[in-house]
Amino acid sequence: MSNNRYALIVAGGSGVRMGNQLPKQFLPLAGMTILMHTLTLFHRLNTMPSIYLVLPSQQFELWETLCLEHAFTLPHTLVEGGDTRFNSVQNGLNAMYGNGLVAIHDGVRPLVTPAVVEECYRVASEKGNAIPAIRPVETVRFGSPSSSLHMNRDEVWLVQTPQVFELNRIKKHYQCAWNEMFTDDASVAEANGDTINLVLGNPENIKITNPMDMALAEAIIKTVRI
Amino acid sequence: MSNNRYALIVAGGSGVRMGNQLPKQFLPLAGMTILMHTLTLFHRLNTMPSIYLVLPSQQFELWETLCLEHAFTLPHTLVEGGDTRFNSVQNGLNAMYGNGLVAIHDGVRPLVTPAVVEECYRVASEKGNAIPAIRPVETVRFGSPSSSLHMNRDEVWLVQTPQVFELNRIKKHYQCAWNEMFTDDASVAEANGDTINLVLGNPENIKITNPMDMALAEAIIKTVRI
Repeated sequence: MSNNRYALIVAGGSGVRMGNQLPKQFLPLAGMTILMHTLTLFHRLNTMPSIYLVLPSQQFELWETLCLEHAFTLPHTLVEGGDTRFNSVQNGLNAMYGNGLVAIHDGVRPLVTPAVVEECYRVASEKGNAIPAIRPVETVRFGSPSSSLHMNRDEVWLVQTPQVFELNRIKKHYQCAWNEMFTDDASVAEANGDTINLVLGNPENIKITNPMDMALAEAIIKTVRI
Repeated sequence: MSNNRYALIVAGGSGVRMGNQLPKQFLPLAGMTILMHTLTLFHRLNTMPSIYLVLPSQQFELWETLCLEHAFTLPHTLVEGGDTRFNSVQNGLNAMYGNGLVAIHDGVRPLVTPAVVEECYRVASEKGNAIPAIRPVETVRFGSPSSSLHMNRDEVWLVQTPQVFELNRIKKHYQCAWNEMFTDDASVAEANGDTINLVLGNPENIKITNPMDMALAEAIIKTVRI
């Protein structure tokens, strides 16, 4: 397999759930926007992936303005997003050429550790793919409110990103039609016949989608990371 | 069914996971200890439950000192804890007499909303039991790291407390021997033949078990609750 490494950062959010006009990936967090934290993390990896950032085209100008304001000059390729996350990932993958591995990552997950990302690339280089996941701390049940059963939580996994795949294989998988079961990239690969490999993630790797997440991200940066 | 209402607050933690000598239920949070927040919440309910607090006996003196320091005078009955959470709940239940409903709640969950607690009492008064649960925001998989399958997350529930039961029924269930599948009170009831009813919980109702949870609890109180 080629040693090429890519990172596809997907940031299509419109910010509706944040109760804020500014899309959530542009919200400030410890001196930078959330998205800049995420890009910086991938830029500093030993793996040194080529970074592709998928954004809605109407946000390109704002992003460029923010980069100027923050003197943010990390090299990356800007790709136009689609109407859905699925379409955005398709567009991002289609902008990449060559062989190797691609890490598909949510732009609003700035708190994954470099060690987890590197482990996903490493396992994927051996087994074809790898995604990070953590075990729930809560008791887990399965079913409906009136009819549910206790589950063995040792076998339950809460899935995060980055999700790493062989570029040409995931590109091909993404040629299929969208399906409502596609809640992440691994579910697209699985629906097309791949077996997914899990890597233990870090619990701080939250997806920032609401004000409580934002407060938690600030707290993590202040109290856990330092 | 009797209208008696009880609350059994279980606070047996030794604080090992917090990296702190002080057991986590005694850590300060917005001017009170965590445990005082929890007791205050139950004390203010329209339901007005009789409150029982289970603590390891070696923590009684510290608790009384803290109550004096904070001029904390809410009425509650102190019950000696056991070696495990299971034993502590047994001791608490055995200290209660009469008919009615008991809400069994983790002392380190101060952020459940009164509305969720009242709804659990209400549904339990109709159906015999009720527990709060929320849906995961993440994609969920089931299995082992090398062999897992994507789950329909609409059917996955992350369980919280308070868990409300008919007092005499759960007291009887708790006479059974401990089993490693008992990760909460509902799993004890289920193993003894009960069907469990789920009520939608509030996502801020976290169990404070590590420093990250502590930071999140502070952030919730500061930014979401006010």
